[in-house]
Amino acid sequence: MERIESIKNKKIKSWKKLLTKKGRQKSQKYIIEGFHLVEEAIKADVQIDYLLISENLNQDDWLKNITVESIELSEEVSAELSDTETPQGIYAILPFPEPINYKEIDRPYLFLDAVQDPGNVGTLIRSADAAGFGGVVLGEGSADLFNPKTLRSAQGSHFHLNIYHGDLISWIRRFQSEEKIVYGTALDERAVSYIGEKPETNFALIVGNEGAGVNSEVLKETDKNLYIPIKGQAESLNVAIAASILMFSLYQ
Amino acid sequence: MERIESIKNKKIKSWKKLLTKKGRQKSQKYIIEGFHLVEEAIKADVQIDYLLISENLNQDDWLKNITVESIELSEEVSAELSDTETPQGIYAILPFPEPINYKEIDRPYLFLDAVQDPGNVGTLIRSADAAGFGGVVLGEGSADLFNPKTLRSAQGSHFHLNIYHGDLISWIRRFQSEEKIVYGTALDERAVSYIGEKPETNFALIVGNEGAGVNSEVLKETDKNLYIPIKGQAESLNVAIAASILMFSLYQ
Repeated sequence: MERIESIKNKKIKSWKKLLTKKGRQKSQKYIIEGFHLVEEAIKADVQIDYLLISENLNQDDWLKNITVESIELSEEVSAELSDTETPQGIYAILPFPEPINYKEIDRPYLFLDAVQDPGNVGTLIRSADAAGFGGVVLGEGSADLFNPKTLRSAQGSHFHLNIYHGDLISWIRRFQSEEKIVYGTALDERAVSYIGEKPETNFALIVGNEGAGVNSEVLKETDKNLYIPIKGQAESLNVAIAASILMFSLYQ
Repeated sequence: MERIESIKNKKIKSWKKLLTKKGRQKSQKYIIEGFHLVEEAIKADVQIDYLLISENLNQDDWLKNITVESIELSEEVSAELSDTETPQGIYAILPFPEPINYKEIDRPYLFLDAVQDPGNVGTLIRSADAAGFGGVVLGEGSADLFNPKTLRSAQGSHFHLNIYHGDLISWIRRFQSEEKIVYGTALDERAVSYIGEKPETNFALIVGNEGAGVNSEVLKETDKNLYIPIKGQAESLNVAIAASILMFSLYQ
């Protein structure tokens, strides 16, 4: 097995750039970190360019049977590639997935309008997967899917769903042209309580930016806008929490 | 107004220690950061020892009418006290709240069993507030309430709820002695789906550690254990997401 001991190694330098959006865009690759994500990548049967393993890693049995090209890293080199304070010491380098064609809508979709926090975007993808949704559309201004924090929060669910990047207005029209209902979310008189809304089998749910919510131009195009009644003194819910309550309530 | 320009100033040194649990325990004080939290503290009418304002802060009108002792900080000193990468430049130093006596249970409570991530604990407190819960009990092994990340995620909801620290088994017995139902959460055959569970007006809901879930000794003491059916390929939900789905579903 190849071994890398220097943080000045060319491969390490190029992989370290994958921690930034610019570096990922340039090379069309991304890095995943941690046992769970690497195991999910292998389960999902996606292309893996390299598997990187720290010298100190206590290797699980499943890892020993993998045929992907593996490289051993010294502990210092491993830490150099990590986005976390306590690296697990296992990474994989993956090419960006091929853009997926538009597929038939046979399950609900979640649309994200400028959700900025990578942890929120990742948690939304994980929750959409758990709720049985078919896909997620990342609208403009949303955090990068391949940001290490997004991937860590998504826990591998980006391998399970159809994930698109696109203009939400076009996506709303696409759903409506197929007679699927499109729900926005809003906190004011433009919205109705989600309680009592009949579960649907095919629909889109749009949630928005952490501060500003869903853009008002987008809300004008929806079929119905929902809100979650707040009973205590909190002003609002975290966007990933609100979306998850709605996803599990609308799609049962 | 007093002004501090040196990070070696004694007050700054002592307040910087409030970013650690040890420092907070020793002085029985904590620090809050950002407009929203400071405004919530003022609204909640809690004791504030000092209000700290960066020299560059664009002061909102409400801030000018505050009678709390204010100190101006140079930008460098302000950054020294911040737990964030982009400090807003406003802080307050607060004494720990007095321990609250056991109050009558007139609303549901959320119990946390070793929820380790401060962001999760904070989001759980915010969601419990939004759901109309009366309080949160932090069991052993849970993240510190006064950790800056907990407070940031809670968005001031810790000012609105009764928050206790305590042994969960004792709390379960206390609720049961008053004939309130206690729900655990589990992912296996010890649990039933939450769907169709009739909303209750007074109960306790227990959620657990991010990896291990609720301790099995605790689950033995509950009246009923619930789970959320997962429909996709995700292995689980984030604990704050799962708890929020249950809180909003059980208490309407």
